[in-house]
Amino acid sequence: MSETLILVCNDDGIDAKGIHALAKVAKRFGKVVVIAPDSPQSGMGHAISVSKPLRLKPYPFGDGIDAYACSGTPADCVKMATGVVLHRKPDLVLSGVNHGLNASISVFYSGTMSAAMEAAIEGVPSMGFSLADFSADADFSASERIVDIVLKNHFHYGTPENITLNINIPRLPLEQIKGIRVCRQAYGRWVEEFEERIDPHGRPYWWLAGRFKLNDEGTDTDIWAIENGYVSICPVNIDATAHHTLPQVNRWKLENLAMTEVRETAPHFVEFTPPE
Amino acid sequence: MSETLILVCNDDGIDAKGIHALAKVAKRFGKVVVIAPDSPQSGMGHAISVSKPLRLKPYPFGDGIDAYACSGTPADCVKMATGVVLHRKPDLVLSGVNHGLNASISVFYSGTMSAAMEAAIEGVPSMGFSLADFSADADFSASERIVDIVLKNHFHYGTPENITLNINIPRLPLEQIKGIRVCRQAYGRWVEEFEERIDPHGRPYWWLAGRFKLNDEGTDTDIWAIENGYVSICPVNIDATAHHTLPQVNRWKLENLAMTEVRETAPHFVEFTPPE
Repeated sequence: MSETLILVCNDDGIDAKGIHALAKVAKRFGKVVVIAPDSPQSGMGHAISVSKPLRLKPYPFGDGIDAYACSGTPADCVKMATGVVLHRKPDLVLSGVNHGLNASISVFYSGTMSAAMEAAIEGVPSMGFSLADFSADADFSASERIVDIVLKNHFHYGTPENITLNINIPRLPLEQIKGIRVCRQAYGRWVEEFEERIDPHGRPYWWLAGRFKLNDEGTDTDIWAIENGYVSICPVNIDATAHHTLPQVNRWKLENLAMTEVRETAPHFVEFTPPE
Repeated sequence: MSETLILVCNDDGIDAKGIHALAKVAKRFGKVVVIAPDSPQSGMGHAISVSKPLRLKPYPFGDGIDAYACSGTPADCVKMATGVVLHRKPDLVLSGVNHGLNASISVFYSGTMSAAMEAAIEGVPSMGFSLADFSADADFSASERIVDIVLKNHFHYGTPENITLNINIPRLPLEQIKGIRVCRQAYGRWVEEFEERIDPHGRPYWWLAGRFKLNDEGTDTDIWAIENGYVSICPVNIDATAHHTLPQVNRWKLENLAMTEVRETAPHFVEFTPPE
């Protein structure tokens, strides 16, 4: 059997401190190849480059690790890995360690998590790691221990299919971290606070800012875990179907609906009259 | 009670034929405001603009509809609507009609669906519509009838909370559409086929291309519906948690895990030794 092949990527860019911490730990578990954006791609969500071509350059990452800087998005990096660089699927994709949390609803905006999701879509086990510290020189020493523990578990117990793991780490020294909890995504959202400015030509422009608002009292959520000194692990679905709502939408009169002019040729349509 | 306020957006850009079809039908149900990207944003996923400011310009949309072209992503447009233009939440957000399907896994890459998701995150009922025709001059006449039927149902029966509806329409004349089915998202993915080219300076670059591969035999999926002449409606979750896998991840030894050097101060940690 060939050596375990681990792809490491992120959204902060290939020169971020967090991806170096992640690659260093990953190397204990197999051969590591780094493919990451050549510039910061935070907030990039699951964007892919459909209207511009992609560039890829070898990057002097250090530690004897093969690395490539990609001009595209985090999701592009995972696609380029399989399609252009590795010519096979990796055995595991790790994304991060992100400079800043990606808990709750941020999973949808995060390029870090989208790279991990892209791997899950391709059928490859994957995880995204994020530390609650935005600063460029954040301390990843506790994160390295958490990554190590999670990877030991992954290689021993396995990870469920068709998901990725969203792992968020509080900004605490290792000895103050209380443990690791498996959590659900907290309900919450970013409340927009746009800042309007006027450019030198007298035209307005807006900066998107916001503050996170938690709408969830649960103690089983990722936000609760982080605020209470735990690392959170949330399994994230690639099946976005809201299965529990299928019966409610099925109450709609759809199959029996309403196109008078085609009723003759399609007798399963019945006119639908909304109430006045 | 004030008039129903409907925000219309898309990812193909404010001058696309599909958004005009959607706004025209939406106008039957309330006051319509259009805020859409000033350029095509396909494949943009749930990207938001965190590192560049946003511009917004009134746009001559016609039909007496207030419209604004935004320099940002589809998700930005929804944020700008609430935060800058409307100063209130709309009652409904409609996105599309997209030129091209957004069924199955494409929900994650689609800017159209991300605008609808963004509305759901803000607690606003929302729907994304997509037609299985990429061409700029696609025929949206059947789509207009489908939008009308769906909106009648929404205003009569309501739509579940914390979801958005992903509605895909086959490329068929109205009289050949067999009906509308409530579906789950089909398992499938885009298989990358990168095309390598060499620029005039001798350097390689890659175009991302791909073909869709269905990994799902079900007859209850969106892809099955479209391939068999039905419109599909898939409710899409904003809770990405893979709830069904929580027990499996909980089998991991996490709470009891393993940091020898902190065992004294954190007695809930127990050393974990992976098998050789």
